[in-house]
Amino acid sequence: MALKTLSAKAAAALDKELMSTGAFSIDQLMELAGLSVSQAVYRVHPTTKGRRILVAVGPGNNGGDGLVAARHLRHYGYLPAVYYPKRPKNDLYQRLAKQLEDLDVPFVDDFASALKLTDHVVDAIFGFSFSGEVREPFPAVIQAMTDTQVPVTSVDAPSSWSIEDGPPKSGVGSSFNPDVLVSLTAPKPLVKHFKGRHFIGGRFVTPTIAKKYDFDLPEYEGIDQVVEVGPDGQKL
Amino acid sequence: MALKTLSAKAAAALDKELMSTGAFSIDQLMELAGLSVSQAVYRVHPTTKGRRILVAVGPGNNGGDGLVAARHLRHYGYLPAVYYPKRPKNDLYQRLAKQLEDLDVPFVDDFASALKLTDHVVDAIFGFSFSGEVREPFPAVIQAMTDTQVPVTSVDAPSSWSIEDGPPKSGVGSSFNPDVLVSLTAPKPLVKHFKGRHFIGGRFVTPTIAKKYDFDLPEYEGIDQVVEVGPDGQKL
Repeated sequence: MALKTLSAKAAAALDKELMSTGAFSIDQLMELAGLSVSQAVYRVHPTTKGRRILVAVGPGNNGGDGLVAARHLRHYGYLPAVYYPKRPKNDLYQRLAKQLEDLDVPFVDDFASALKLTDHVVDAIFGFSFSGEVREPFPAVIQAMTDTQVPVTSVDAPSSWSIEDGPPKSGVGSSFNPDVLVSLTAPKPLVKHFKGRHFIGGRFVTPTIAKKYDFDLPEYEGIDQVVEVGPDGQKL
Repeated sequence: MALKTLSAKAAAALDKELMSTGAFSIDQLMELAGLSVSQAVYRVHPTTKGRRILVAVGPGNNGGDGLVAARHLRHYGYLPAVYYPKRPKNDLYQRLAKQLEDLDVPFVDDFASALKLTDHVVDAIFGFSFSGEVREPFPAVIQAMTDTQVPVTSVDAPSSWSIEDGPPKSGVGSSFNPDVLVSLTAPKPLVKHFKGRHFIGGRFVTPTIAKKYDFDLPEYEGIDQVVEVGPDGQKL
């Protein structure tokens, strides 16, 4: 059975629907998305493997998910550091950053230096709305995540990958293959190029929405906000 | 060691501080509070004990926590039903109710009848801002929760209890002693009158806030959003 995926266009429509007829606020959805990411990190990288987590945060909603994940990871006992070079004036992102400052989570300016002092990286730079070119200062960050031996968990998409077609044919990101991917709500078509451990998160989708967008709700277990799946989308 | 508690006045100030200098939105806090409640219910009453959960929802924030908990419980595989007789026009509560309607969660009008068809009750009627008299239609609901053999989990406070002094000396609520209590952020003084299983939830409080309000952060485990504590507040 092939894994059903959600195109970039469908993912955008689904997000819009959740926040209109679905009556969710972006605060709610981002909280649950970031919580999913934090639980996946805990699963693949328990605190016993090292508490230092470097979270690379992009300028949009994918970055917001990363900020929420960093907060939950701090509460779990990790020591996250956040690289957040492009901060939009958006009120929500500013509040999420303030919540981290209040937990004494450091914000770092130099990704390459911070990478030498971490046990795990969360890539929350670009999500399903990414297309085109990787803008500064992110090409060097993606190259560093490609070259590092430290495990990398990507949120929704490996940053720089085309949502439909996967890694770029050449240049930055063409050799980037993170260790872990957390697909939010449903996997995107790029997953067929992904070789690592794959989780699905975002336990707020209704059966009606899943049916409308033609994907299967993952088989979450118990109270988990995340489920690990195989290449066919079945629970591992 | 005596358990440190948070007075009604201090709890209100803490809430206000989280949403001002703490930069949290009420959507975020309510999502995490309701998630805590759902995890406590799962702990004391796994789906194998019966999937039917009746959630009694009051007109304020305690009720909002109940609506969020009902949604998570539905996602966990329970079959919640919601009794919500006083619906304020507040946009957030309306959205939380819509999210339940989209999951086909039934709203029931007759609490006593619904109580005969449930395996567990969540009491989300009144929280730390309650004082004075129990208004209609809730006296009969609290009496029914007092008389039933079905286990009851109260959110933040057994409804009708004084936050400082516990159960009323006479009348409705004077014999109400729920099986489970989920204290949000910190226990309130009423806990010294409570005899059941006690959980603390709301894993978003910073060490600075806990210090300022003079209570101890509970020792949550792993990714849990809730922790069971003994009479002294220590993890069980």
